[in-house]
Amino acid sequence: MQLPSALLEQAVNEFSKLPGIGKKTALRLVLHLLKQEPEKVEAFGEAIVRMRNETHFCQRCFNISDSLLCTICANPMRRQDTVCVVETIRDVIAIESTQQFNGTYHVLGGIISPLDGIGPDQLHIEPLLKRAAGGAITEIIFALNPTIQGDTTIYYIQKKLQPSHIRITTIARGIAFGGELEYADEMTLARSLQHRMPVEQLKV
Amino acid sequence: MQLPSALLEQAVNEFSKLPGIGKKTALRLVLHLLKQEPEKVEAFGEAIVRMRNETHFCQRCFNISDSLLCTICANPMRRQDTVCVVETIRDVIAIESTQQFNGTYHVLGGIISPLDGIGPDQLHIEPLLKRAAGGAITEIIFALNPTIQGDTTIYYIQKKLQPSHIRITTIARGIAFGGELEYADEMTLARSLQHRMPVEQLKV
Ligand SMILES: [Zn+2]
Ligand SMILES: [Zn+2]
Repeated sequence: MQLPSALLEQAVNEFSKLPGIGKKTALRLVLHLLKQEPEKVEAFGEAIVRMRNETHFCQRCFNISDSLLCTICANPMRRQDTVCVVETIRDVIAIESTQQFNGTYHVLGGIISPLDGIGPDQLHIEPLLKRAAGGAITEIIFALNPTIQGDTTIYYIQKKLQPSHIRITTIARGIAFGGELEYADEMTLARSLQHRMPVEQLKV
Repeated sequence: MQLPSALLEQAVNEFSKLPGIGKKTALRLVLHLLKQEPEKVEAFGEAIVRMRNETHFCQRCFNISDSLLCTICANPMRRQDTVCVVETIRDVIAIESTQQFNGTYHVLGGIISPLDGIGPDQLHIEPLLKRAAGGAITEIIFALNPTIQGDTTIYYIQKKLQPSHIRITTIARGIAFGGELEYADEMTLARSLQHRMPVEQLKV
């Protein structure tokens, strides 16, 4: 793509570095911004730079935060004794949007994945063990993606936590509601059978 | 979507103002930027703001430009006597990428569309008439989208140009190459018949 302006080209290049944004989409976005008031475009640029420069990881749970503690950890209405362990900030946002969880979180920043060179030391596992050792946690709920690496991570952390009085659970796995059994992969189906539950638990 | 950081939320809001970017996509893009080095994110913000603040419309053709004349108008190898009239900068880029046109452009900035409140005065028509009156143009090629509004715009400009020695043409219209006649809309089909061409002109 030959562009008539080096500045335009640079902006298009920056946009097309973003995941899922090709050159054509980048050009469309940039030409849209070109039509906006300069103040609006400055607000856009500033919001992005400030988001990167002025947010932190929450000291306690490694969620994204505007101050030392994130809004969830700082909220006295949230149960500090129940900690949901997730892989990423996006998982926190996903669970929060269900409005079904009143505990707090711990963001690992990934899962153990030797093939990708990610071991326990690259993750926020040590701070979780410290939180647990502090004695204020009664339940840890693992909400990791149901993969081999996810299970490895759960297994690794669980071993480090024991012996402990903490109840350790994982989110239920099985055929997704509305999903079709026929198309479920073998592992999901096998686990679904293995973790079969009494019919009384079905909320109809 | 409940976000744990006001700064994050602001960045997501800014991204989701862009055309075709929903809240979920915006969040994905912002979380991607959050993982980048601060300098990279600053380069991103700066490229966008500079693109908006430091580009101009070319004085002659209203293409986007880093200086008074765009790279096409300033190029002595391009024919200044052949002017292709287009609606937007995006059309310039599309035609340039064919590498088949060696003339210059004139960007109208839209087409006459009374329903959208766009009349001739909102477009760069007057400067085109002045360019033509200067006497240096021998052919004007309209490359507007083949719609009623496009045709209205061509008709309006053509009337203003006459009487004139300038040859006025429009890009060929018809069934798109590889398209299926059966699915072409009536107007395209009707025009295709009307503007039928000798078989000898088919380049096989
Ligand atoms: Zn926190
Ligand atoms: Zn120009």
